[in-house]
Amino acid sequence: MIVRFSGEIGIKGEWTRRAHERLLLKNIKNTLTHYRVDYTEIVAKRGRIYIEADNVERLASRLPTIFGISSISPAKHTTSHIEEIAQTSIEMTSKETKNGSSFAVRCHRVGTHSYSSMDICRKTGEEILTKLRGKHLHVDLTDPQFTVNVEVRDADAYVFTQTIRCAGGFPVDSQRKVVCLLSGGIDSPVACWLAMKRGCPIVPVYFDNTPITDEATTAKAIETAKKLFEWSIGYSRRMYIIPHGQNLEIFAQKGPPKLTCILCKRMMYRIAERIATAEGAEGIVTGEAIGEQASQTIVNLRVLNEASKDYPIHRPLLGFDKIETEAIAKKIGTFEISTKKAKGCTAAPKQPATQAKLDVVKKAEDSLPIETMVETSVQAAKIMTL
Amino acid sequence: MIVRFSGEIGIKGEWTRRAHERLLLKNIKNTLTHYRVDYTEIVAKRGRIYIEADNVERLASRLPTIFGISSISPAKHTTSHIEEIAQTSIEMTSKETKNGSSFAVRCHRVGTHSYSSMDICRKTGEEILTKLRGKHLHVDLTDPQFTVNVEVRDADAYVFTQTIRCAGGFPVDSQRKVVCLLSGGIDSPVACWLAMKRGCPIVPVYFDNTPITDEATTAKAIETAKKLFEWSIGYSRRMYIIPHGQNLEIFAQKGPPKLTCILCKRMMYRIAERIATAEGAEGIVTGEAIGEQASQTIVNLRVLNEASKDYPIHRPLLGFDKIETEAIAKKIGTFEISTKKAKGCTAAPKQPATQAKLDVVKKAEDSLPIETMVETSVQAAKIMTL
Repeated sequence: MIVRFSGEIGIKGEWTRRAHERLLLKNIKNTLTHYRVDYTEIVAKRGRIYIEADNVERLASRLPTIFGISSISPAKHTTSHIEEIAQTSIEMTSKETKNGSSFAVRCHRVGTHSYSSMDICRKTGEEILTKLRGKHLHVDLTDPQFTVNVEVRDADAYVFTQTIRCAGGFPVDSQRKVVCLLSGGIDSPVACWLAMKRGCPIVPVYFDNTPITDEATTAKAIETAKKLFEWSIGYSRRMYIIPHGQNLEIFAQKGPPKLTCILCKRMMYRIAERIATAEGAEGIVTGEAIGEQASQTIVNLRVLNEASKDYPIHRPLLGFDKIETEAIAKKIGTFEISTKKAKGCTAAPKQPATQAKLDVVKKAEDSLPIETMVETSVQAAKIMTL
Repeated sequence: MIVRFSGEIGIKGEWTRRAHERLLLKNIKNTLTHYRVDYTEIVAKRGRIYIEADNVERLASRLPTIFGISSISPAKHTTSHIEEIAQTSIEMTSKETKNGSSFAVRCHRVGTHSYSSMDICRKTGEEILTKLRGKHLHVDLTDPQFTVNVEVRDADAYVFTQTIRCAGGFPVDSQRKVVCLLSGGIDSPVACWLAMKRGCPIVPVYFDNTPITDEATTAKAIETAKKLFEWSIGYSRRMYIIPHGQNLEIFAQKGPPKLTCILCKRMMYRIAERIATAEGAEGIVTGEAIGEQASQTIVNLRVLNEASKDYPIHRPLLGFDKIETEAIAKKIGTFEISTKKAKGCTAAPKQPATQAKLDVVKKAEDSLPIETMVETSVQAAKIMTL
């Protein structure tokens, strides 16, 4: 299997690039061990990773959830002898093409050889036409139905016909940990995933609003976290469940009705800050997008931010339309979980403030035992390892 | 012209939805007036906007840069009489299809009529086949090469054959203003554009690092801002140019070399805060993505954030791979400008800190006249109206 690094890794300075490559190698090994996928060899060389395995399909099924890989190609390994390359190409073409197909041979060569890349293409193409005469193939260099790719690297050669796009990004753990607010909804898992994609291991924090919401919502959040952890095999699988229903009830009963969601979110940020400190995390990730909900207007995001004193609030979905978020959720398998039936939050007011004023919010908080509420919630946190 | 609202507008509550629709109508009118595109009528009804114009191509060329529109369809307006619908459909099909094409008629109907949607499809399909016999068309309902769409709305009907995808998002000015750090690079214009897409008018701020960078970089930033303003016709076209070269020189000479970029960025945030206050903006948008540069590790983003006291730092590109950012830049026309030749910043150290410590950064700042530098820069700001 040929494994290609994300393009962005290749343009880093020497030191950073090597660190990323080593980390990706480690993450791949951990993932394959976790899923008990056998391989005989795995090496990083010449800006690629090569994995030798008998069951290449099983291997291909586990690599696409590893960040830092741009694409993979199941390949046959052979020597750089031109006859062997041609022979391997014929075998793969014979197995994989339909009769009457058009095809092309492409070659990329690194090292010193007695032939040029063009020689490989010509020789292999001719041999395929001759030896597989019965298949009635024909050459089409501009838009072939089938492509034989040959990569020659010094004494080795790899022949492949298929390139599978992977998730890109940076290897998980190339960045420090972040705490993520994870609800049972569609958006927050996508925000988590984007932070992971850029290299951050995540610590999901779920705010359990029972009895205002139900157990089904909690179950959805846990299932979503499990799904997300499939993208960071080998790293923390801890999730925090914070009992938050009582806090929310206090806000709904004692706060100005327009501000319930703002007060609730600010409390979440404060609790998340405490968890970030406990976990040694460097930021808090949320699924907010500008204007997606009343609490997420640009004015309200500023009011929310003010509650977080020591950690940045990272919002990878800021500029996403709902439809774009949903497309990613479907791709990564969280959409199905997030859209399962559950009782939504019923504490949200009919007319929420879209332009909350910070002084009014602070005044409302002044009459509530905010610090005690934070402390009680943090103390009651349930930490699960999924 | 049929103009369709972004899907997200449709799912808002009644009051918000109407406000968005009114705003979009206003933005469309402003844009068409700005470009002197004539139209005879523009109305919002039944969840759509309809524009009557003679030169529909000119109209079609100006609508795709207006946020809040999901798609448009140049259409013929006729009555809901089934004969007139069929006649209009025949005329359009005659003009627009190639001989031998497959086609289908689709119908969507609102109101009370003497016929069903199915009747329209059947009747129109039959008439097309009969009257355009010479074109040798045939019906294919699953994968037609050409589709005649009929929308019947009470006494009106619209026939169209083409749907052009637009940018989506929310109408500009549905959110409050944001200040955007705009460099001559590829990323920041995309971040600005995403903020605009979600409804925020932008105030770009460019930090002029001459003599460390050159005039060409400034020219690129101005050209990029002009390009971005094409997406917010009718709103502020102000741009701030801040002389920053002297600040950067001080950091490069007097600060710890590892921290030059961190000190420079923190200064930018401080100045941006002052401009945000002057402009009545609600946040600061930057083009940072996790791990994209040494100054953008998750640890360094936290250190940067600490410099901004009163405004959130919004980073719409947090989770984007470079390749994804570039794809948007190409789509919106800023890539070409951003990749023009210019002298890059030469003050960046060879070994920048990737895990800066806040106390070290603060200590470095303590020995510099930070407040004076902010004040001098703000005072020297050049405000341009583009």
